[in-house]
Amino acid sequence: MDINTAIARLDWTKEPQGLYEPIAYTLASGGKRLRPTLALLAAELFGGKEEDVLPAALALEVFHNFTLLHDDVMDRADVRRGRPTVHVKWNDNTAILSGDQMMIEAYKLLSQVKEDKLPQVLRWFNLMATEICEGQQYDVDYESREDVSMAEYIEMIRLKTSVLLGNALQTGAYIAGADPQSTQHLYNYGIHLGLAFQIQDDLLDVYGDEKTFGKAIGGDILCGKKSFMLLTALHKADAATLQELKTQLARQDTEPKEKIRAVTAIYDRLNVCKDAEDAIREHTQTAIRELATLPDNTVREQLRNLAEQMANRTK
Amino acid sequence: MDINTAIARLDWTKEPQGLYEPIAYTLASGGKRLRPTLALLAAELFGGKEEDVLPAALALEVFHNFTLLHDDVMDRADVRRGRPTVHVKWNDNTAILSGDQMMIEAYKLLSQVKEDKLPQVLRWFNLMATEICEGQQYDVDYESREDVSMAEYIEMIRLKTSVLLGNALQTGAYIAGADPQSTQHLYNYGIHLGLAFQIQDDLLDVYGDEKTFGKAIGGDILCGKKSFMLLTALHKADAATLQELKTQLARQDTEPKEKIRAVTAIYDRLNVCKDAEDAIREHTQTAIRELATLPDNTVREQLRNLAEQMANRTK
Repeated sequence: MDINTAIARLDWTKEPQGLYEPIAYTLASGGKRLRPTLALLAAELFGGKEEDVLPAALALEVFHNFTLLHDDVMDRADVRRGRPTVHVKWNDNTAILSGDQMMIEAYKLLSQVKEDKLPQVLRWFNLMATEICEGQQYDVDYESREDVSMAEYIEMIRLKTSVLLGNALQTGAYIAGADPQSTQHLYNYGIHLGLAFQIQDDLLDVYGDEKTFGKAIGGDILCGKKSFMLLTALHKADAATLQELKTQLARQDTEPKEKIRAVTAIYDRLNVCKDAEDAIREHTQTAIRELATLPDNTVREQLRNLAEQMANRTK
Repeated sequence: MDINTAIARLDWTKEPQGLYEPIAYTLASGGKRLRPTLALLAAELFGGKEEDVLPAALALEVFHNFTLLHDDVMDRADVRRGRPTVHVKWNDNTAILSGDQMMIEAYKLLSQVKEDKLPQVLRWFNLMATEICEGQQYDVDYESREDVSMAEYIEMIRLKTSVLLGNALQTGAYIAGADPQSTQHLYNYGIHLGLAFQIQDDLLDVYGDEKTFGKAIGGDILCGKKSFMLLTALHKADAATLQELKTQLARQDTEPKEKIRAVTAIYDRLNVCKDAEDAIREHTQTAIRELATLPDNTVREQLRNLAEQMANRTK
C-alpha cells in the first residue's frame, strides 16, 4: 500500500473534535513521508512483509509530525508546508494538547508491532524520541551561545534530525529479520542521510524558493539560529567581515527583509554555499558507502537514489 | 522500597540540563504519589513482587506529572504544590519540551515491564493516556459552553482524573497475575475513587486553605471552569440567583478576589458544599463496594482506608 494511502486511512473523525481535527490537519498537509518510506524500504530490502512494518512506519510519521507541531509553537513558526501552523490556525493550547495526543497515537501505532519484536522496537523508539528532545534543547541553548562549534552543531542535528531516519531504517530492517550488522549499516546510512538533509535545509533557508520550500526564507537568520551557514560564515570571515556579520545579526532596528538581505550578502561574499554543498555531498557519499555490504537488489538501488535526490532537493 | 525513595533514585543529572532540570524539579515537588501507591497496593493485594510492578508504578507517576506540567501551561497556573510552576520558573517552551520528554520517560519506564506483560500494559497505558487528553479537551471545550450537563461533567472528570487511577490499579493487579474479574473490580474502584477525588478538588478550590491545598483558591471561578460547584449552583439557583451568578461570572471589571468572594457567597447561600460532600460520599462508598469480592487481607483494608481518607482530605 502507498504510504499516503495508509496515512489517509487513519481515522480522526472522533470526539472531541477539538483534539483530533488538528491531528488530521497536520497529517493531511503532506510532506515527503521520508521516515515511513525508509522503514518500508528497509524491510523490503530484507524481504519483510509490508503489513508487519506498516504500524511502525506510521508511528514514525505521526511522531515526526508531533515534533513539528510542538517545534512550531516553540519557534513561533507561522507557516509549514505552505499552510498556517496549528498554533496559528487554532491556538497554542490546541497545538500543545493535540501534539501530546499525536505522540500517544504514535505509541498506539507502535504497540501494534508483533509481540516478539515489540520490546526492542519500543526501546529503540524511546531512545530516538529522547534524542530528538535533547537535540531540540541543544538547538534552543545554542541560540543564546556565541561559541558553538561545528562539532556541536553536527551532534545537535544528528540528534534532532538523523536519529529519526536511522531509527526508521533500523526498525524496518529488524522487523524484517535482518542481521544486526546490516541493521547497523542501515542505521548509519540514515544518520548521514539526515546530516546531509539538515545541512540542505539550512542552505534552503537562505537560498531556497519560498513557494517551493513551503516555508518562509530567512527564518534562521532572523532568530539567530546557529545554522551550518552561520557557523561556517563565522569561521571563514576575516576580522572586518566578522564585525559586520555580528553587527547585522544584533541589529534590532532593521526590517526583517533587510536583515535577511544583509546577512545573505555576507554569505554570498564568503561563498558559504560552496561549503554547505561540499558537506552535503560528503555525507551523501558516506551514507551510500554504508550500503555496500547490504543485499544487492533494486531496493538498495532505491536507497542510493534517494540519498542522491535528497542532496539535490529544493523543498 | 518506599515510592518516594524510588522516585528520588531516578537520575536526572544528564545533559542537556535545560531539558532534565525541570523534570527533576517537578518530580521533587512531592504530591501524594497516589498513582504509584495504587499500582503497588494492587500488586501486593495479589501477592505480586514489588520489583515487577515498580517500573509501571513509576511510569504512572512520571506521566501524571507530565500532564500537570502541560496543563499548567494551558491553564496559566502559576503555583503547584506551593511552588512556582515550570513555565513560570523557566518559560513556556521549557515546559512544553521538558513535558514532552517526561512523557517519553514514562514510556521508557513502562518498557521495563516484563516482556510477557508488556503488550497489554502498553495498550492499556495508551488508552488511558488518550482518555486523559480527551478529558482535558472536553474541559477546555466546556469553558466556553453554557449548557454543560452534570453527566457531561462526570464523564469529563472520569477521563481527566479517574482513568489514571483505574489504570494504576488494573496494571498493578495484572502484573501480579490477578484474574480479569478482580482486575476489573479494582479498575472500577479507581474510577469512583477518582470521581470522589475530583469533586473534592472542586470543593477545595472554593473552600480549601490556600497554604494546605498548595495552590491558589478560586482559580476555577476566575477561569469560568464548569466545576461540580458551578454546575450544581446553576442547577439549584432560582431565576434571580441564576441571574446574579451569571452577572458575577461575566464581570470583567472586578478584582479577582472580589469575584471569588461574590461567587462563593452565592455557593454558600445555595449550600453547594452539601451537594459536593454528598457526591463525594456516594462515590467513595461505591468505590469501597467494588472491593467486596477481592482477597480479604490487610491490603484491601488499606485500599478501603485510602478511599475514606481521600474523601476527607484538605490538600
